[in-house]
Amino acid sequence: MSEPIRVAVLGASGRMGATTVRAVQEAGGLELVAAIDAGDDLRAVTDAAAQVAVDFTVPSATEQNVHTLVDAGVHAVVGTTGWDDASLGRVRDHLLRAPGVGVLVAPNFALGAVLAMSFARQAARWFESVEVVELHHPDKVDAPSGTARHTAQGVAAARAAAGLGPVPDATTHTLDGARGADVDGVRVHAVRLRGLVAHEEILLGNPGELLTIRTDSFDRVSFMPGVLLGIRQIAGRPGLTVGLEHLLELHG
Amino acid sequence: MSEPIRVAVLGASGRMGATTVRAVQEAGGLELVAAIDAGDDLRAVTDAAAQVAVDFTVPSATEQNVHTLVDAGVHAVVGTTGWDDASLGRVRDHLLRAPGVGVLVAPNFALGAVLAMSFARQAARWFESVEVVELHHPDKVDAPSGTARHTAQGVAAARAAAGLGPVPDATTHTLDGARGADVDGVRVHAVRLRGLVAHEEILLGNPGELLTIRTDSFDRVSFMPGVLLGIRQIAGRPGLTVGLEHLLELHG
Amino acid sequence: MSEPIRVAVLGASGRMGATTVRAVQEAGGLELVAAIDAGDDLRAVTDAAAQVAVDFTVPSATEQNVHTLVDAGVHAVVGTTGWDDASLGRVRDHLLRAPGVGVLVAPNFALGAVLAMSFARQAARWFESVEVVELHHPDKVDAPSGTARHTAQGVAAARAAAGLGPVPDATTHTLDGARGADVDGVRVHAVRLRGLVAHEEILLGNPGELLTIRTDSFDRVSFMPGVLLGIRQIAGRPGLTVGLEHLLELHG
Amino acid sequence: MSEPIRVAVLGASGRMGATTVRAVQEAGGLELVAAIDAGDDLRAVTDAAAQVAVDFTVPSATEQNVHTLVDAGVHAVVGTTGWDDASLGRVRDHLLRAPGVGVLVAPNFALGAVLAMSFARQAARWFESVEVVELHHPDKVDAPSGTARHTAQGVAAARAAAGLGPVPDATTHTLDGARGADVDGVRVHAVRLRGLVAHEEILLGNPGELLTIRTDSFDRVSFMPGVLLGIRQIAGRPGLTVGLEHLLELHG
Repeated sequence: MSEPIRVAVLGASGRMGATTVRAVQEAGGLELVAAIDAGDDLRAVTDAAAQVAVDFTVPSATEQNVHTLVDAGVHAVVGTTGWDDASLGRVRDHLLRAPGVGVLVAPNFALGAVLAMSFARQAARWFESVEVVELHHPDKVDAPSGTARHTAQGVAAARAAAGLGPVPDATTHTLDGARGADVDGVRVHAVRLRGLVAHEEILLGNPGELLTIRTDSFDRVSFMPGVLLGIRQIAGRPGLTVGLEHLLELHG
Repeated sequence: MSEPIRVAVLGASGRMGATTVRAVQEAGGLELVAAIDAGDDLRAVTDAAAQVAVDFTVPSATEQNVHTLVDAGVHAVVGTTGWDDASLGRVRDHLLRAPGVGVLVAPNFALGAVLAMSFARQAARWFESVEVVELHHPDKVDAPSGTARHTAQGVAAARAAAGLGPVPDATTHTLDGARGADVDGVRVHAVRLRGLVAHEEILLGNPGELLTIRTDSFDRVSFMPGVLLGIRQIAGRPGLTVGLEHLLELHG
Repeated sequence: MSEPIRVAVLGASGRMGATTVRAVQEAGGLELVAAIDAGDDLRAVTDAAAQVAVDFTVPSATEQNVHTLVDAGVHAVVGTTGWDDASLGRVRDHLLRAPGVGVLVAPNFALGAVLAMSFARQAARWFESVEVVELHHPDKVDAPSGTARHTAQGVAAARAAAGLGPVPDATTHTLDGARGADVDGVRVHAVRLRGLVAHEEILLGNPGELLTIRTDSFDRVSFMPGVLLGIRQIAGRPGLTVGLEHLLELHG
Repeated sequence: MSEPIRVAVLGASGRMGATTVRAVQEAGGLELVAAIDAGDDLRAVTDAAAQVAVDFTVPSATEQNVHTLVDAGVHAVVGTTGWDDASLGRVRDHLLRAPGVGVLVAPNFALGAVLAMSFARQAARWFESVEVVELHHPDKVDAPSGTARHTAQGVAAARAAAGLGPVPDATTHTLDGARGADVDGVRVHAVRLRGLVAHEEILLGNPGELLTIRTDSFDRVSFMPGVLLGIRQIAGRPGLTVGLEHLLELHG
C-alpha cells in the first residue's frame, strides 16, 4: 500500500471547495491536510506538506495562488474560472523554471461534459450538419451556456480543419431568433425551463442518419470524479495541462 | 357487412392525393369511385355517386371545390392549406342551408402531431415553464414550422385562460437568437439538420419535474390514418368541423 | 380575500409529510393548523378545527385515519400506499353516510406522471404499437416500477376497449429478457443507472410516425403541486375520488 | 486533378449493391467500371481494370470473392456478413503473400453507429453504470440487434480492462424480462415499434450525471459515406483492416 497523496483545498468553504473537501476525505489513497479560505495564508499549504493543491477560489486570486504553489513545488489542480491565454502563458513560462511540477487548469470537471465535447470534435468532420441545444434552469443569466459555446467552437474548428464548408440551411422566412445563435457558423439553442439543471445535446446529421450526444448534470457531485482524477494524475504530468480531456486516454 | 363508403379524391395526382388514392384502395370498407385532377370536371364526383370527397388540391381551388361538393350533398374531407377565418365562415354559412352535409377542414392529419398539440394544451396550465423545439431537414424554407407556431399559440392561450403569468427567464446576457423566437410569450427553437424529416418536442417544467411530448414524422403515409378516420366519420358529423382533434374522442 | 383553508398533516415527520408541511406553510391561501405523527392522538385535528387533513402515514394506519376524519367531517387527501378495492369500497360506503365530506386517494401526486398516464390512455387506441421504458436509480428493488406497470395496464385496457388486437412483433430469435416484461400484452423495459432518479417513457408508433410521452422526476417537491391542488379542491368534491387525474380538467 | 479510382461492385443488383452503384456513380473522384451479379464471371473485374472492388454479395460467396480479388491485385471493401475469425485469418495470411493489397471487412458502414460504438468504449471506464436500449421496426426477427450486442460486448470489455466491477443493481423483485438481456454483464433492452427503423441508445451514469449516445438510421443511404470512405482509403492501407473505425482517425 503506497502512502496517500497529501491534498490541500483552497477556497474550502465555497460550494465547489466544500464538495471537494468531502470528496477528498471519502476517497481512498488521498489525505486532506489543509483546508484554506480567503484571507488565510497560503503558507499553510507548505506547512502541511501538501503535495497537491486544489484551487476553487475566485478569478481575481487564482493565478497568484498557482504561482505561489509552483514556487513551493506543489502540484495544482485548478477549477476556478477566469483564465485566459495571457494568464495561462505566464504559468506555462513559470513551469519551465520548475521542472517536475504539474498544473492542471480545467474549465469543466464533469466527465460526461468533457467526453461529450471530445466526441463531438471527433465526429464533426464526418457529418454534413451539426447543431447544439443546451437546456438549463430559468435562473441562469447567460445564454447560451459557456459549455455550449465552447462545444460549438470546437465543432466548428474540427469542421474547418477537415475542409468542410458551411452547414446546409435553406431558411428564407424566419421569426427572429428561431434558428438560434450563430457561434462560428454552428447554431446554438438555449432552452430555459423550471425543473432542469444543466443539460446539453449535440446533434449531427447525414442523409438517412443522426448521431446525438447528450449530457445531463444534476448535481455538483458530478464534478468530483474529474477532480479526484486530476489530483491522482497531476504529479505524473509536469508542465501545464489545459483541459481534463488530456487525462482521459481517449482513442478510437 | 355494410356497403362500402364511396370515395372521390380531388387532386389525385399530387403527392398527398396519390397517397390517399392508394390508402383508400387498400382500406377496408371504402371504395374509390373517382380520382380527379386539376382541369377535370367536378361533376365526375356526382356522376360516380361519391358520398365523401377528399380535397388535396391547391389553396386557390379548395374553397370553390367545397362549395360545389356541399351543393351536391357530398361530404368533404379537406387537407389543402390556405383556409382562413373568412373562407371557413363562408362554408359554415353554406352548411346551414345544407343540413346533413359534413365538412372537415384539417390543417394537419398526422395523428401524433394532433394528439401532441392537444396534450400540450391540456398540460400547459399545470406547469410553470414551457418551450417548443422543432427539428426539420435543412431544405425547409420557413422557421419555425407552422405546426410549432400553432402549438406555441395553443399553449400560450391555455396558460392565459388559466391565469398564468409569463414563464420564468432570468437571462440578461445573451447571444442574439440563443433564446429562440417568441410566439405569444412561448419560446420556439428551430433545428435544421440533414437526416431529419419533421419532429417536434414540447417541454414543460415544474420544480423537480419535467413532462416532454415528442412527435416524429418520417413519411406522408403517417397522414393516412387521419384521412381515413375523417372519411369514415364525416357523414356522422354534419356542419363544419375544423381540426382532426374533434374526431379523436380525447378525454382524461 | 377569503379565509385560508385550515390544514392538518398526518405523518408530519416522514419524508413526504415533512415536505408537505413546508409546502402548506409556503402556499398562499392555506394555513397549517396541526402536524401529527405516529402515536399522536387524531383528536388534535378537530381540536385545531382543521378543514382538510393530508395523510402520508403508513399502509397499516391510513384507512382507519380516513374513517376517523370522515366521522369528524374533515376532508382527506391521501397519498399513503396500500389501498385496495376493499378498503376503497369501505370508505365509499362510509361517505354515503357523510354527505358533503370529500376524500381523495391518489397513488401518485406527480402532475407530470398523472398527465402522462392520461395522455397515454387517450392516445393508445390510435396507434398500432406501444411500449413503455422506465428508468430509475440502481438502488430500486422492484422492476418494473409500479407507475410503469400501471401505465401499461391503462394502455392495454384502452387498446382492448377500442377493439385493437395484439401489437405487432415478429421476434423469433431472442436473448432471454431482451423484449422486456409482458404487462397485459404491453412490453415494459426497466433501466437502472446511477445518476437517474425516476423517469418514464411511453412510445407509440404508426407507419411513418411516432409519439413519445416522457416524464422526469428529480425530487419529491414535484409532488407538492398535486398535493396542494387536492387540498384546495377536495371540499368541493364530496364522496370518494381515486386518482389525481379527476381534478385536472383534462380534455381535447 | 488526379485520375478517378476505378471501382467494381459485386452483388450489384442486391439492395446494398444497387445503392452502392448509384453512390459510386454520383461521387466525385470515382468511376464505376464493372457491376457484377451472382453467376457473372469475376474476371470482369480485372477485364475492366478495376482498382477497388466492393463486395455486397452473400455469406457463402464473399470469402472466395476476396481471395480471387487479392490474387488479381484488386483492393477489396467488404460489407457482406458471415465473416468469422477463421475466414478473416485466411484472408490475413493470403495478404502476407500479396504486399500492397488492402482488404477492409466492415460489419457496419453506418458512420454514426461506428462512432457511437467507439465513443461508448472510450467512455465506459469512466462511468459506474451502463445500459443499452435498441429500437427497431416490429418486423425484425432477432432481439437484441447484432449492433446492440456488439456494443454491449465492447463496453463490457472496456470496463473489464479498466478493472471495473459489475454495474450496481439492487433489483430483488422483478417481472420476468423487465431488466433486459444480459450481454457480458451489460443489460440490453430491445424495443419493437411500428414507425421505427433502426436506433440505438447507450446510457452511461455516474452520481449526479448522465451521458447518452444515440444513433438513428432511417435509410440505407446512410451507409454510403462509409462505403465511399473505404473505397478512397483502402489502397493506402495494405493488409487486412477489420472495422470502419480504423479509418476514422478518432482521437480525443
